[in-house]
Amino acid sequence: MTLFAPIFVPEALGQELADEAWLAAMLDAERALVTAGALAGVVPAAAAAAVADCCRPELFDIHQLATAGRATGNPVEPLVRALRAQVGGEAAQWVHFGATSQDIVDTAAMLVARRALELVLADSDRVAAACARLAREHRSAPMVARTLLQQAVPTTFGAKAAGWLVGVLEAQRRLVELREHGLAAQLGGAAGTLAALGSSGPEVLRLYALELGLAEPVLPWHANRVRVAELGAALAIMAGALGKIAQDVVLLSQSEVAEVAEGAGGGSSTMPQKRNPVGSTLALACARHASANAGLLMGALVQEHERAAGAWQAEWEALTQTLAFGGGAAAAMAGVLEGLAVDAARMRANLDASGGLVLSERLSLLLAERLGRQAAHDLLAAAATRAATGGRPFRDELLAERSLGLSPEQLDAALDPAGYLGSAEIFVERALTLYELAPARRS
Amino acid sequence: MTLFAPIFVPEALGQELADEAWLAAMLDAERALVTAGALAGVVPAAAAAAVADCCRPELFDIHQLATAGRATGNPVEPLVRALRAQVGGEAAQWVHFGATSQDIVDTAAMLVARRALELVLADSDRVAAACARLAREHRSAPMVARTLLQQAVPTTFGAKAAGWLVGVLEAQRRLVELREHGLAAQLGGAAGTLAALGSSGPEVLRLYALELGLAEPVLPWHANRVRVAELGAALAIMAGALGKIAQDVVLLSQSEVAEVAEGAGGGSSTMPQKRNPVGSTLALACARHASANAGLLMGALVQEHERAAGAWQAEWEALTQTLAFGGGAAAAMAGVLEGLAVDAARMRANLDASGGLVLSERLSLLLAERLGRQAAHDLLAAAATRAATGGRPFRDELLAERSLGLSPEQLDAALDPAGYLGSAEIFVERALTLYELAPARRS
Amino acid sequence: MTLFAPIFVPEALGQELADEAWLAAMLDAERALVTAGALAGVVPAAAAAAVADCCRPELFDIHQLATAGRATGNPVEPLVRALRAQVGGEAAQWVHFGATSQDIVDTAAMLVARRALELVLADSDRVAAACARLAREHRSAPMVARTLLQQAVPTTFGAKAAGWLVGVLEAQRRLVELREHGLAAQLGGAAGTLAALGSSGPEVLRLYALELGLAEPVLPWHANRVRVAELGAALAIMAGALGKIAQDVVLLSQSEVAEVAEGAGGGSSTMPQKRNPVGSTLALACARHASANAGLLMGALVQEHERAAGAWQAEWEALTQTLAFGGGAAAAMAGVLEGLAVDAARMRANLDASGGLVLSERLSLLLAERLGRQAAHDLLAAAATRAATGGRPFRDELLAERSLGLSPEQLDAALDPAGYLGSAEIFVERALTLYELAPARRS
Amino acid sequence: MTLFAPIFVPEALGQELADEAWLAAMLDAERALVTAGALAGVVPAAAAAAVADCCRPELFDIHQLATAGRATGNPVEPLVRALRAQVGGEAAQWVHFGATSQDIVDTAAMLVARRALELVLADSDRVAAACARLAREHRSAPMVARTLLQQAVPTTFGAKAAGWLVGVLEAQRRLVELREHGLAAQLGGAAGTLAALGSSGPEVLRLYALELGLAEPVLPWHANRVRVAELGAALAIMAGALGKIAQDVVLLSQSEVAEVAEGAGGGSSTMPQKRNPVGSTLALACARHASANAGLLMGALVQEHERAAGAWQAEWEALTQTLAFGGGAAAAMAGVLEGLAVDAARMRANLDASGGLVLSERLSLLLAERLGRQAAHDLLAAAATRAATGGRPFRDELLAERSLGLSPEQLDAALDPAGYLGSAEIFVERALTLYELAPARRS
Repeated sequence: MTLFAPIFVPEALGQELADEAWLAAMLDAERALVTAGALAGVVPAAAAAAVADCCRPELFDIHQLATAGRATGNPVEPLVRALRAQVGGEAAQWVHFGATSQDIVDTAAMLVARRALELVLADSDRVAAACARLAREHRSAPMVARTLLQQAVPTTFGAKAAGWLVGVLEAQRRLVELREHGLAAQLGGAAGTLAALGSSGPEVLRLYALELGLAEPVLPWHANRVRVAELGAALAIMAGALGKIAQDVVLLSQSEVAEVAEGAGGGSSTMPQKRNPVGSTLALACARHASANAGLLMGALVQEHERAAGAWQAEWEALTQTLAFGGGAAAAMAGVLEGLAVDAARMRANLDASGGLVLSERLSLLLAERLGRQAAHDLLAAAATRAATGGRPFRDELLAERSLGLSPEQLDAALDPAGYLGSAEIFVERALTLYELAPARRS
Repeated sequence: MTLFAPIFVPEALGQELADEAWLAAMLDAERALVTAGALAGVVPAAAAAAVADCCRPELFDIHQLATAGRATGNPVEPLVRALRAQVGGEAAQWVHFGATSQDIVDTAAMLVARRALELVLADSDRVAAACARLAREHRSAPMVARTLLQQAVPTTFGAKAAGWLVGVLEAQRRLVELREHGLAAQLGGAAGTLAALGSSGPEVLRLYALELGLAEPVLPWHANRVRVAELGAALAIMAGALGKIAQDVVLLSQSEVAEVAEGAGGGSSTMPQKRNPVGSTLALACARHASANAGLLMGALVQEHERAAGAWQAEWEALTQTLAFGGGAAAAMAGVLEGLAVDAARMRANLDASGGLVLSERLSLLLAERLGRQAAHDLLAAAATRAATGGRPFRDELLAERSLGLSPEQLDAALDPAGYLGSAEIFVERALTLYELAPARRS
Repeated sequence: MTLFAPIFVPEALGQELADEAWLAAMLDAERALVTAGALAGVVPAAAAAAVADCCRPELFDIHQLATAGRATGNPVEPLVRALRAQVGGEAAQWVHFGATSQDIVDTAAMLVARRALELVLADSDRVAAACARLAREHRSAPMVARTLLQQAVPTTFGAKAAGWLVGVLEAQRRLVELREHGLAAQLGGAAGTLAALGSSGPEVLRLYALELGLAEPVLPWHANRVRVAELGAALAIMAGALGKIAQDVVLLSQSEVAEVAEGAGGGSSTMPQKRNPVGSTLALACARHASANAGLLMGALVQEHERAAGAWQAEWEALTQTLAFGGGAAAAMAGVLEGLAVDAARMRANLDASGGLVLSERLSLLLAERLGRQAAHDLLAAAATRAATGGRPFRDELLAERSLGLSPEQLDAALDPAGYLGSAEIFVERALTLYELAPARRS
Repeated sequence: MTLFAPIFVPEALGQELADEAWLAAMLDAERALVTAGALAGVVPAAAAAAVADCCRPELFDIHQLATAGRATGNPVEPLVRALRAQVGGEAAQWVHFGATSQDIVDTAAMLVARRALELVLADSDRVAAACARLAREHRSAPMVARTLLQQAVPTTFGAKAAGWLVGVLEAQRRLVELREHGLAAQLGGAAGTLAALGSSGPEVLRLYALELGLAEPVLPWHANRVRVAELGAALAIMAGALGKIAQDVVLLSQSEVAEVAEGAGGGSSTMPQKRNPVGSTLALACARHASANAGLLMGALVQEHERAAGAWQAEWEALTQTLAFGGGAAAAMAGVLEGLAVDAARMRANLDASGGLVLSERLSLLLAERLGRQAAHDLLAAAATRAATGGRPFRDELLAERSLGLSPEQLDAALDPAGYLGSAEIFVERALTLYELAPARRS
């Protein structure tokens, strides 16, 4: 609806979610309906063929349908009317036979979601591949870990990327599950009994789902929206997992930190030196939209009787937006991570900048063996405070402590971050193994 | 982004929020900027005129701007580049002079919001007028009040409409306040100091706001988003107040209740007899969208430093959606209420259907005077239960109670709902007075 | 925090989420930590035993811990201090060895969630069983289906209950999955490398998870919150599926509909006749809380670096509330459905009240065979309108139509709802089969 | 409900929102009701006195009331029963006379909100005062402004604090408005007509509101929840404005930035050197909770008929939480800002660290006068890139440009940040003026 959509949503995804794609999907549903009807012997074959032949988007005027849809509260009424006019003659009466508007909209939503999910998953694959590469390449590259945005202890950039990777793989796994099993055809007729189809209802439902390549639901799900809410939640969670990476990239890109930079940093309209983390910024905005719209979908589970007045209609735009922004986040972060410039030297410099303060946990363990934990903690906290305020390096403050009991050489060894990486590399391996197994776990 | 937008958003409002409107608003901001600069003596008058002359939407390719905006993370960078190309020569350098991208986007958002708010308010005026008419016309028309959707005691349809009216007036009052005082120009330059304008910053800001007819802010508000969140909240609250009416119309329109009907009830694609409360349904969907997007705007108040990475960018679509759906709810309910068919006879019939049960509070008061409150309550609850289960009318069950102490005539008088309307009419008067005073309270 | 919690949350669940339960869970984590350390040879066995022996909630003052936690921003710091004081001597230094505060809070959250989930799932089992019973008993009981709250076509109450059942089973399946695989121990040390544990990190992590009966994560998940968001979403979706049932019960309980009633309807403080659908009302309120808090959890996925400043801390209360209200909804609806009074006669009466209008889809199909679909639709819509406005029954309006071509007997047969239930019973069977298979699909 | 509440919510505020406070407020409402009834001549004075005398919290068992409230769906039914038992005799029947449960709960909510708002506003006053002091003291202290978290151009710390101040003042203004005019008594009786009070309804309503010191509403607002949603939104916006400050403090406190530090930084359980921005972290968590709960309140505007089934009941906890976390954010940030350590030297050092890059906008303006804007922009961007990658300082890269046309002295003058602060100080003055006028604007 705004100038801004293409800024957040890649063009290919935007097309899968555009009016034309929705119209095509609704016509796919109508075509599958007469086809299934014909196969089940409910609809005359010739009539079905005539209808199917008219299920082509180019025969319809989208703007007119949408405007007419305002009066009926959904776009299917006018579409059915227009399709009947296209078909003409006897065959026209078989258009939409056995279905209700919601059958068509919901099925179209599943088709649109399936096509969009392909793109979302493909971009999240790119994200995962890029994270895996970063984890592998930088598995031993020391950097400082930060908690509450304060330098804490050493870690490696590989371990950070491994954490990103696992988040994306977990979110992806759920999305794949839902793509495989959660996208179901909708066909219930006026109120979920398929009464207009007589005794052929279940057979037509089966063939309809088969024709569309969608799962056959146990029941029509007109007012059971669990699958829609689950899809929305999974997309928002994917967007959130991507947003976590984006947030880290923005923070690591800060002028004062400068450990990474987006390859294609955005310029500023007024400041020539700026290299903004644009891709990550867009991904963060996308995550907010995905979450807000998924929240709407969760709130819309409470639907009245056999078709809701309001909650169902609100889903259409919300699901579209969740797909658009979920995919927008994936595309943005794929671009960011594939082009990410990593400055290992700066990582090392920032790690060293505290003069060893970030090794104080390690010192604390060393000293605790002799002094007891509390005394060790207090000695170190005091030295850290003096170093922070007085100007003398932490190392010198420590050596000045009589109770330290470490030689300068021992202290320097203890202050070497490369010696205090714990299981960082092992965790990187575990994440990479999970990544390699991910395709197998999908099927 | 979808086939569905025109179903929810009236065409005129859709146009005020469309790409073209946003582009025009951004160009209005750029024109005001050079104009203010010229008036303040910062920009040569001839250059300003040359720039202003090119601030015409038809000179720009929206799709190209949006696509280019993906690289810079906002649409102003490419617009400024294109505008400079249009202007050409020496004058081109004065394009965007002193401003940053956010100045233009935020100011455009305020302009778009102002135009959209006019429509939202006009439609909410129609809603208020219709509610006032309904309250006036039906001030004494008895109907049953329902609590937790159970018949409770008598009220009048006028009192119900008066309640709708007051909700809309309260929501409107805040929207008017924000339109008057909350829509402020944005001009801070690269980071809120207007440094590029030297000592003329405040003067240019003043003239820029004046030129645009927007409020002059105390400070640039790049990272202080209170006004945006307040606008979003006020729109969502308006949509919610309208949604409350819509919900009541849907409930009163139920086949089993049938006290009102939308004049232009929507047909069904399969069921000829259906007369769906379509307008109310759309308004309810709109209220959900407005609320979800306003929630995003409230969450987006936390913005980093002098310009946020993500939260600000997420506002653009969210504010647009809040205006679209807030206005969509107002338009839908204006149509619904202006055409609402009210069935006073059915209201009376539903009121009488309980055989006097809905007067039991009144009886309870009457009997309590003699029996004490608890005994009266118990006697009535027992009679009500017997009437509900045994088949004999409540009135007869009561008369069979020896301790009742009322003659049949006294009982019948007590069971007349018209005699137990309390202050319903007085409250209608109060609401109508508030409505008549509303314009005066706006200025 | 309020007088109201016990109104929404059953007492047993409230206890699993209370301060005492959280404290016990944090101490369970600390005990498992020293135990795992001892088994891995990192912590002296005697020290571990001494620590484990003090991990008893009754030794600690909850209020004092919480108050002290304000200064450190989490409750673990003061707890560790207090636990060390309890242990005393040499052994005290092994308290919390290798862990960070977040390890303990996150692990405790998983333990609390596991215990609470048992109750949520048990109550949702009761809901499913009650839905299955209602579906089975009323599989052929005709009632009217309602779309947009308008009478549409016949269905059966069994089919409605089957729809409720499937929604709950789908939501339950995901919750069971997450209980089985999604509840993971947290142990990463200061920043996810387990550096303090030297080379024993992964072994301690394995034993710690084993000791607690929680899944062992691939990596510490300090800043990867996918599992928390997934849990929140699944709970909100369960609450929403329950809310859908609650909404239907409230609507069916309306005085004008009266097809069901809560067995233990709540009285009113002033109206003796009222029998409010209290349980459903509480479930609907719970669904709103679960959804709002799950939304917070989804928004909290974006966490900075190795430990977030704000988003993580917000999870604690949000997850607790999601569990509380998810469980509150399940408990309320279990009670409602187990005691639900179903009035099949009233269902039938409401179905017949339209004088056959709800069979107009069927007539439309019948007539279309001869008149063509559009003419049939128009004939029926006209007759329906005349019946609705003129007073003559729909049946008589139809018989007066020359073009109808049905004998009165044929018309009456067509107007019998029992003959137009379509696949309602088959769908009931399918839902019951899913229900019977549900336990098998869990393992 | 959890161990964590006292971490986020100050004790005094917690008490105003506790069970005891709600109970006291409900009893205040009952007392005011009989008092108003007596003054209006509806209730016998002696009976009123007897009732009023029993409206003391210590006479009631909160846990019992809450548990009993589960059956009726609200806590007033059991309270009224218990109060009648306390009063005994004839007078007992005047307890709750004319009111419905919602009258008492809603009025109590307003009373609780009023008391809590006092504390929220008092703490936000502390925040404003601290911001004003910081703005005043540091009005000329240069620091770097950051957009998208990248160093942009110079500003002053005073200007940043002035921005914080204006956000809080704007949010506060709305809260004050709502405290003055938005907190209204609720009294409508069973369904908003006050029928039980005969013709005295409006008079009792007036006296009741007067007695409680709450605004008298035009109508009972049982199902018009605008005032509740507005209060929630205003609190969430205040929390968001505070969260913005908190976010800036967290970012400025980063080890690599270190321009400010919380006076009482929190320690870590494992890392002796850590000085965490604990107060800001808690405020950020509070802002998330306030926003989520305010979102629930906005979504709850859609309430059915004369009393809602679900949406109203969900408000109780949501409003309480919004007050708790809104106040929690205010208290936390008051503490943070009153104790904030500001390191002006470090600000200056960070500003200088780019070697003049942050002055490139200024250079761009200087050079544009001779080279034209685009050429100037390109020259500077190229020099900036070379400086960033090649190691030679920006200044030297510039001097090496033949087309620069500036002497080293001119260049050095241009690169002095103190000369490029624009209107920072003027804006500080404007914000301080607003602050000084704020009390006057409240009344």
